[in-house]
Amino acid sequence: MSTSVTVLAGGVGGARLAHGFALALPDGGAPAGGGGLTCVVNVGDDTERHGLHVSPDLDTVMYTLAQLNDEDRGWGLTGESYAVLDQLGRLGEDTWFTLGDKDLATHVVRTARLRAGVPLSAVTASLAASLGVRARLLPVTDDAVRTAVSTPSGTLEFQEYFVRHQHADEVLDVSFTGVDAARPAPGVLDAVTGADLLVVAPSNPFLSVEPVLAVPGVRAAVAASTARRVAVSPIVGGRAIKGPAAQILESLGHDVSALGVARLYVGLVDVLVIDAADAALADPIAALGFDVVVTDTIMGGAAGRARLADELLGLAGQR
Amino acid sequence: MSTSVTVLAGGVGGARLAHGFALALPDGGAPAGGGGLTCVVNVGDDTERHGLHVSPDLDTVMYTLAQLNDEDRGWGLTGESYAVLDQLGRLGEDTWFTLGDKDLATHVVRTARLRAGVPLSAVTASLAASLGVRARLLPVTDDAVRTAVSTPSGTLEFQEYFVRHQHADEVLDVSFTGVDAARPAPGVLDAVTGADLLVVAPSNPFLSVEPVLAVPGVRAAVAASTARRVAVSPIVGGRAIKGPAAQILESLGHDVSALGVARLYVGLVDVLVIDAADAALADPIAALGFDVVVTDTIMGGAAGRARLADELLGLAGQR
Repeated sequence: MSTSVTVLAGGVGGARLAHGFALALPDGGAPAGGGGLTCVVNVGDDTERHGLHVSPDLDTVMYTLAQLNDEDRGWGLTGESYAVLDQLGRLGEDTWFTLGDKDLATHVVRTARLRAGVPLSAVTASLAASLGVRARLLPVTDDAVRTAVSTPSGTLEFQEYFVRHQHADEVLDVSFTGVDAARPAPGVLDAVTGADLLVVAPSNPFLSVEPVLAVPGVRAAVAASTARRVAVSPIVGGRAIKGPAAQILESLGHDVSALGVARLYVGLVDVLVIDAADAALADPIAALGFDVVVTDTIMGGAAGRARLADELLGLAGQR
Repeated sequence: MSTSVTVLAGGVGGARLAHGFALALPDGGAPAGGGGLTCVVNVGDDTERHGLHVSPDLDTVMYTLAQLNDEDRGWGLTGESYAVLDQLGRLGEDTWFTLGDKDLATHVVRTARLRAGVPLSAVTASLAASLGVRARLLPVTDDAVRTAVSTPSGTLEFQEYFVRHQHADEVLDVSFTGVDAARPAPGVLDAVTGADLLVVAPSNPFLSVEPVLAVPGVRAAVAASTARRVAVSPIVGGRAIKGPAAQILESLGHDVSALGVARLYVGLVDVLVIDAADAALADPIAALGFDVVVTDTIMGGAAGRARLADELLGLAGQR
């Protein structure tokens, strides 16, 4: 039986680490005999564009696991064209949210199936299977949870903040509309409590991890989990690998460092994995009660991802 | 004041003749001082593909008037690509109904606006305006009317019959689901009763013209119209210019000829326009009570369309 790994993931950071596990586990992380990889993914970034339901984080993880993602850009599919988007612009639609043609097919199918009453988790499973993904991909919830970002100029829908404003606004607060009434999608709680290794991906703590944990039952499942619980810091050398995590830590009054991240995760995980660049923070982080692993956490290519995943797999079963 | 022309149209034949009028009338047929071109278009061919609302006849007329249509193929847009359709196939969708990328943008926008509660007629007006269409384009109804075709192997949804089965099945009967409850779209009855010239396009009498006339109130409006009422035969030399009109005339027991078409239109129109190839049928058609115009009705290019439209404009106001 292979190790069972559950990754709580947002977009790019979660996708890369999930890809590492898919490479490191047998059969691409396919579930078998209780083992395999399950990704529990944030849906707070979900949005409706041109009447289509877009799930950016689910798609980033799905495309990355399918090895179809555009690595340079960090989102979307390789070899994309933009014929539909160009024409949508001609037809008077706002086109600041870039959608490639192949990517759009995902949203068309997802929207049609959702409207036919199929839950997001089942739609996601069929899309992922069509693209050859072996691991299990779960939205944290089938219900609508939407991240809203309070800024000095007002509250923005997540993609307005992230894409249209290019995350330039100061973040005063982050909230998750609908989260109180949301239920974990089928399989989520079992995957969290029953894993050998539970990994909080190096995703944005406020925008990616928190909307996963905030779904009622998920945080408690992490607390009750028998897994070895590990978080990988998304802050390396005082900067985010990608996205606005550093600015948000700062504007919300946290240290912009792996230590600042560690403080957010006290009581949530047992192990904090930090980059070699932050080795000097190992002692203060350990003082917070974590086991600390110092390693190379920058997952440029497939080899780096698989190596990091392998190292994390070594932590499983040590609890 | 220019002549006001209303064309009852299906797909390709209606689109070509409408294009002729747009060329022959001032300002592309834009409404002005009571004149201009109004196309009242069949929606019985409408279908839902991949959760998107597709209106093939409206789009054929719209794209043709915008001079963006693929002339060789008879439907869709020029310079199309098929990236979305290819990907839809990869995601497990049936792809027998070909949708180009640019065309798909039309359906995405239409679907989003319909779901937001905008009626089809208003959606159509905004789409047409975005593409530079000056004439008025009206779906015959904002309500759902769907053509169903009875065949020896069962009843088929229109696009199943037309596209998937390539109109190879024998047609035993044609019906229009929802037509009894349908109301003419805003502007339709006025356009029919108030025109100077009312033209039944050389479209399929059973599949394109009948579902327009069958919307309650439309046939009566044609009867009450003060317009000179003209039909152009879609059958030339015993054959349809395009599509299954000839087979259907035959399987339903009609003469496969302009005379057979004329018999269908007794009491509906005053003038029957037939092709020079059918000059020998002028007398028997006149004997049915029609004024008969014999001319070149094959509208290959823009010049031929404009010439036929010009000739029909000469009939206006003769009633």
